[in-house]
Amino acid sequence: MARFQPKNPDYRATSIETFEAQRAMKTLGISISRLEPGEVDLAMDYSANLTQQHGFIHAGVITAGLDNACGIAAFTLMPPATGILTVEFKTNLLAPARGERFAFRATVIKPGRTLTVSEARAYAMHDGVETLIATMSGTLMALAGRPTGPEEIRAPA
Amino acid sequence: MARFQPKNPDYRATSIETFEAQRAMKTLGISISRLEPGEVDLAMDYSANLTQQHGFIHAGVITAGLDNACGIAAFTLMPPATGILTVEFKTNLLAPARGERFAFRATVIKPGRTLTVSEARAYAMHDGVETLIATMSGTLMALAGRPTGPEEIRAPA
Amino acid sequence: MARFQPKNPDYRATSIETFEAQRAMKTLGISISRLEPGEVDLAMDYSANLTQQHGFIHAGVITAGLDNACGIAAFTLMPPATGILTVEFKTNLLAPARGERFAFRATVIKPGRTLTVSEARAYAMHDGVETLIATMSGTLMALAGRPTGPEEIRAPA
Amino acid sequence: MARFQPKNPDYRATSIETFEAQRAMKTLGISISRLEPGEVDLAMDYSANLTQQHGFIHAGVITAGLDNACGIAAFTLMPPATGILTVEFKTNLLAPARGERFAFRATVIKPGRTLTVSEARAYAMHDGVETLIATMSGTLMALAGRPTGPEEIRAPA
Repeated sequence: MARFQPKNPDYRATSIETFEAQRAMKTLGISISRLEPGEVDLAMDYSANLTQQHGFIHAGVITAGLDNACGIAAFTLMPPATGILTVEFKTNLLAPARGERFAFRATVIKPGRTLTVSEARAYAMHDGVETLIATMSGTLMALAGRPTGPEEIRAPA
Repeated sequence: MARFQPKNPDYRATSIETFEAQRAMKTLGISISRLEPGEVDLAMDYSANLTQQHGFIHAGVITAGLDNACGIAAFTLMPPATGILTVEFKTNLLAPARGERFAFRATVIKPGRTLTVSEARAYAMHDGVETLIATMSGTLMALAGRPTGPEEIRAPA
Repeated sequence: MARFQPKNPDYRATSIETFEAQRAMKTLGISISRLEPGEVDLAMDYSANLTQQHGFIHAGVITAGLDNACGIAAFTLMPPATGILTVEFKTNLLAPARGERFAFRATVIKPGRTLTVSEARAYAMHDGVETLIATMSGTLMALAGRPTGPEEIRAPA
Repeated sequence: MARFQPKNPDYRATSIETFEAQRAMKTLGISISRLEPGEVDLAMDYSANLTQQHGFIHAGVITAGLDNACGIAAFTLMPPATGILTVEFKTNLLAPARGERFAFRATVIKPGRTLTVSEARAYAMHDGVETLIATMSGTLMALAGRPTGPEEIRAPA
């Protein structure tokens, strides 16, 4: 009953591999908790190393999670042997990133041959209560026929 | 010859203190390289721990630098005993974050009693060449009469 | 079973009055088709006078509809005697604005005393098929204790 | 001394023709006042038909001017026989659109084969004083080898 039909039969393995290749995700403690065609949830535990001046998680870290969720969600729908880059995103910060655990949930709004638009929401779990803390809308670009390896560039071509 | 007149005579010390209180900046290796009323430059060295799948610096990390530059630039113009929070920002990624060193340069476009709009640009220094890699426009909010300590919240009130 | 509880018992009359006071809405042929606390739908018929070079409705016109939907949705939740202004918005254009009729549907994501965040989607009705053509996320500001009349300014204070 | 080298020797005629083909620009009273490779200024007179509830020009109208300036600026750098569409834009509203005349000034920040990023600023001229009232950053897409005629679609392909 998926909303989207993946073009890459190995979308799951390819997406996980691309995600795991990002060392920044390891540094920030972000991991995949759910992966479907066009939909991705990421999870992150609180870490004092990632806080801003009030002890909450830094907006840049929240944005990194939202951006990755948007990107991997878009990537699940791209054909094999395709590279991906982020074109732009916008984040609205709605509430303090206060919690023990955070979730970044993205869904593709409009897939495309070249450009895909994703939306994501960030949630904080604090004392058993989940709060919406940030939103993102972003544009991702497919680089057809190019591998996703380190020779690939992350920029509009 | 400053474009802006700070309302806080201690804007420099207050701004540096607020910046230093962000542990995420330490984790990401971002520091202040220039601070004037309404203008801030941050600097960051390359680190393999902050990379995406192609070995370039992750967009979320670039965004963290841009957001902080925008925020501190706005903060330099706020009155004493004022808290600050980020309302929103948008980032365009123009080129891969490939380099040995990165700069985030922000300037206030429109200061305000409640809301301030800042713009920032991120540059990569690679083999002696500086390249514009990303832009940000963002809105910051002053929380008048509130301290900047950890009891403060980062959210629209 | 409304998600939101309006603070202004006359929110309906006040919101409609504010909408009707916008002469640009008359020029663009945009009207209110549904109004609930925190939720607004606007409608617009196709007009050749509003087209871009390919005969579709111009993105600026679509944005005007989205912005108004976001603004009125936020306004329904504000207290009496409050002015409103748009702080910022971002629009993603997903498909050509081709159709006989268009709908702009907004909902408040996060109401606040000072700032409210709304999201909206634009749809085109063409040959009986409805297509999502654009999205917006926007920030609205309440100017407490100020009337909404023409002496009010549309700008961060 | 232009910053950019146009790929279309007829960029001027082609850009003006594309602009003039937009009937919405005539309805809004927006015209080209300056056109260089990668840089465009548009002008608009005040009209009571374009106002919001406080008698200032509606944000959607300001956005239409900014969007067109960004688009035409990008279009001047595209090859012949190329269609253009707007992918996304974000607008910050800084001051009320109060004045007798308005200017929309755009410049290309990053040209590209597929995507181009432009920035624009809107100014109000009121009683001889020019005020910055809004900013935009936007992404434009080139549709290579396609004409700009009415069969073209305004959407990510």
